[in-house]
Amino acid sequence: SEIKVGILTVSDRCSRGEAEDTAGANLKDLVAKNTLFRGQVVEYCCVPDEVDQIKEMLLKWCDEKEVNLIVTVGGTGAAPRDVTPEAVKEVIEREATGMCINMMTQSLKVTPLAMLSRPVCGYRSKSLIVTVPGSKKGSEECLRFIAPAIPHAIDLLTGQKTAVEKTHE
Amino acid sequence: SEIKVGILTVSDRCSRGEAEDTAGANLKDLVAKNTLFRGQVVEYCCVPDEVDQIKEMLLKWCDEKEVNLIVTVGGTGAAPRDVTPEAVKEVIEREATGMCINMMTQSLKVTPLAMLSRPVCGYRSKSLIVTVPGSKKGSEECLRFIAPAIPHAIDLLTGQKTAVEKTHE
Amino acid sequence: SEIKVGILTVSDRCSRGEAEDTAGANLKDLVAKNTLFRGQVVEYCCVPDEVDQIKEMLLKWCDEKEVNLIVTVGGTGAAPRDVTPEAVKEVIEREATGMCINMMTQSLKVTPLAMLSRPVCGYRSKSLIVTVPGSKKGSEECLRFIAPAIPHAIDLLTGQKTAVEKTHE
Ligand code: NA
Repeated sequence: SEIKVGILTVSDRCSRGEAEDTAGANLKDLVAKNTLFRGQVVEYCCVPDEVDQIKEMLLKWCDEKEVNLIVTVGGTGAAPRDVTPEAVKEVIEREATGMCINMMTQSLKVTPLAMLSRPVCGYRSKSLIVTVPGSKKGSEECLRFIAPAIPHAIDLLTGQKTAVEKTHE
Repeated sequence: SEIKVGILTVSDRCSRGEAEDTAGANLKDLVAKNTLFRGQVVEYCCVPDEVDQIKEMLLKWCDEKEVNLIVTVGGTGAAPRDVTPEAVKEVIEREATGMCINMMTQSLKVTPLAMLSRPVCGYRSKSLIVTVPGSKKGSEECLRFIAPAIPHAIDLLTGQKTAVEKTHE
Repeated sequence: SEIKVGILTVSDRCSRGEAEDTAGANLKDLVAKNTLFRGQVVEYCCVPDEVDQIKEMLLKWCDEKEVNLIVTVGGTGAAPRDVTPEAVKEVIEREATGMCINMMTQSLKVTPLAMLSRPVCGYRSKSLIVTVPGSKKGSEECLRFIAPAIPHAIDLLTGQKTAVEKTHE
């Protein structure tokens, strides 16, 4: 079945209308066209680089809206206001370590400056939350790196794959 | 000297006797045959996917039995009941980050779906705890990836290598 | 502008004067010669392998001295007294995950025993803190692996690169 996706752009400038959210728009487009997996964007929002506002939206989408996959866009860098990973860490119940390491090692093959990013991935209840950088290019690349595992992760998370099938793998 | 190994299989189905613990049996065999390092299995147990029961066994083996190496098998995936890493994180005192990153980057060379795993490695007192996935193939591969460093880690952990030797490396 | 660097060697033996801090001396030399980036060593100290003493110095350098980059040297291994990562984790506010993963994956290409190291990198206020191993060779290699990203990280951290420039990247 289709993966219900939420795109949460984290950017002071975009949230104030001072910049266009080209990265978020591009990801919305990629999901709508089923480029990465069979999915549909059910939620989209842009919030400023504030831990509380990021957390509030993540909690709403996980706990009330039952979004399968939340992609945060931006706020993963070195600047003092880049706090998306800190917000995500407070919300997730189980870290998806492998997804995070894979995203980073693949990104490092594109550019060594990828090491400035501070990715975190994890599960809260029936939702997978992943962080991607704020640039259009970086955000698409990072989502592509983990896309092959996303449908399987969601199937396991939502119980669409039974314990028996899981064991026989 | 021989490494004292505990194998802790984490599986609802195996603990209820509904499935055979082929992954755990295989690891026991590999250790007994000194395939990976000079070791012997001194503890083996199968517990359900429950944080409390996993923690209880880990604490007993670390604090009372002085097992050198504990290998947990299973419960590292995306399914809601996969909580082995969460139990291990609550028990370890010092994370073995390098071992975890190496296990994952090597696993990713075998299959991109390795990124679904959520490995964690770390030290508690004189014990090293590592997590491997529940499949026979995946569990053997992951243990093999870190095996070259295990004797050295145990030597340092148990003080069999002195500070002087350590400094001269 | 020049990066203000603090070198914090963590070693029981060096702090007691029983061993020479060759690793720390080498890093001081590399920074002074601008081998890695335009920098100057503004602080240097050697403390024993004690969490409290490591933390005290880190806090002083971050909060009072406004050092841009703190490099801890040693105490990242498996031995019971290797507790530098634990001290650093208590001090940093935002983990620099990518830098840490890059340092380890590059180190693993040099030697599989790199997996014994337990690196951690992160930001506290306007300072970047990174951990490198205690050997002369390992410490230089690890600092070299992350050096390409350090000036950029410091620029972002200290606000020398504006939000506009950041967005246009
Ligand atoms: Na210099």
